[in-house]
Amino acid sequence: MDRYRIEPGKKFKLSDYSPDDLGDFEGKKQKGNEKLAEYRAEIDRLQELLYCEHKHRLLVVFQAMDGGGKDGTVRAVFDGVNPQGVRVTSFKVPTEIELDHDYLWRIHAQTPGKGEIVVFNRSHYEDVLVVRVHNLVPKEVWKKRYKQINDFEQQLAEEGTTILKFFLNISLDEQKERMLERLEMPEKRWKFNPGDLDERKLWPEYMSAFEDAIEKTSTKWAPWYVIPANRNWYRNLVVASVIADTMRSWKMQYPDPQIDVELYKKQLMES
Amino acid sequence: MDRYRIEPGKKFKLSDYSPDDLGDFEGKKQKGNEKLAEYRAEIDRLQELLYCEHKHRLLVVFQAMDGGGKDGTVRAVFDGVNPQGVRVTSFKVPTEIELDHDYLWRIHAQTPGKGEIVVFNRSHYEDVLVVRVHNLVPKEVWKKRYKQINDFEQQLAEEGTTILKFFLNISLDEQKERMLERLEMPEKRWKFNPGDLDERKLWPEYMSAFEDAIEKTSTKWAPWYVIPANRNWYRNLVVASVIADTMRSWKMQYPDPQIDVELYKKQLMES
Repeated sequence: MDRYRIEPGKKFKLSDYSPDDLGDFEGKKQKGNEKLAEYRAEIDRLQELLYCEHKHRLLVVFQAMDGGGKDGTVRAVFDGVNPQGVRVTSFKVPTEIELDHDYLWRIHAQTPGKGEIVVFNRSHYEDVLVVRVHNLVPKEVWKKRYKQINDFEQQLAEEGTTILKFFLNISLDEQKERMLERLEMPEKRWKFNPGDLDERKLWPEYMSAFEDAIEKTSTKWAPWYVIPANRNWYRNLVVASVIADTMRSWKMQYPDPQIDVELYKKQLMES
Repeated sequence: MDRYRIEPGKKFKLSDYSPDDLGDFEGKKQKGNEKLAEYRAEIDRLQELLYCEHKHRLLVVFQAMDGGGKDGTVRAVFDGVNPQGVRVTSFKVPTEIELDHDYLWRIHAQTPGKGEIVVFNRSHYEDVLVVRVHNLVPKEVWKKRYKQINDFEQQLAEEGTTILKFFLNISLDEQKERMLERLEMPEKRWKFNPGDLDERKLWPEYMSAFEDAIEKTSTKWAPWYVIPANRNWYRNLVVASVIADTMRSWKMQYPDPQIDVELYKKQLMES
């Protein structure tokens, strides 16, 4: 699945990445979902190792346009993984207290501890996306943030955190379909926000902002993956495979506490 | 499953509650696990309603002796529930900063927000259990805590939080079996802590502390359930059924945002 990882330091054009791409996966939705179930079981197994080895930290970042499937991906990939080992943090519009601090303050507070998987549903990237598109701070402020973010993520990585960043790439047409569905289905209507229509008008500005952010912050220590997301099953499959492959590559081991097992067994039997 | 709920204001004796009890459940492990899967699917469905109705808050507290199955219950009941809607907080030995505050400080900070399920793996009850058994504070201090806890929980409840407290009740013999298993299985050995053997010697003191805590803090607004926990499948089943029944009783509804659907559909089609 390396084809979706954005090479650091190279020019990146979103138009080279089709939201409809299915790679060379042989099979359709059903086979994709079977494969997803396998990856999910593997992530579950690896999470237990992660927890008890207590050495690595994993940070997974999701960004997307409205309807891109952030919620759905979190659910599809992490449902069935021990809820005690996964923490999902959704970053909303910053509160007054958060705005009184720098934009990385609330982010740093939520990064994973040892043995933990943390999922960011939106993240500090909003501070070079929505903030840029809506001119919430002057250009000379947000322009500096790409380097700040790279430095911040490098520090996390050097201290032992693995960072995976996913942009869920849907098309403008697919967004329309999904927004229509929200309007039409009574049990999805609560998800529709009239403000989303205004954001939709800014699609080209958002795409430029995503292009810049991904190009400037896809690094060796915190790569971006641009995931074809028009088809949910394929999106889920690619994300799950990247996470499983990454965790597998750590070659984790159950800790061996080097205790005198026979002594403790004897004590226990007598108790 | 009301049989396991402890009536407020009545004398409570742990010896009246057998860790081996199977109630009048007709069937064994296999049927129990099938039923559990149904409850879990229902909790998943209800959690989505909880999230989008954005009205209730649910706090689930687990307490038990070592080996009582806190981790296993969290996993069995909440695996498969959207990880975005469930947050599990494990309270360990308090840090220096936490000890500089009152014992409810770190607890209050982790209580659920609207639409959220929070699970406490251990809780403020440690401050009338381990703290009492080991004399970490004088008796005149911990004695006051039962009322303090009731008042605290009442305030949470009055402000809209539903609180369910589960004591996972295993026998002294069953604990021995489980500790032996941890010693014998290499992939479970990391869970064995030699200090647990010392705690085991204090079993009677812990049982008295649990008895007092449950009797004094099972309230209308935050009831204790004493769950027979020698058999994992039955323990999981009872806990899941209490949670599902509680959430079902709220009769939650998908919000109806009262928007002009046709207007927005038209705008969307033109965009």
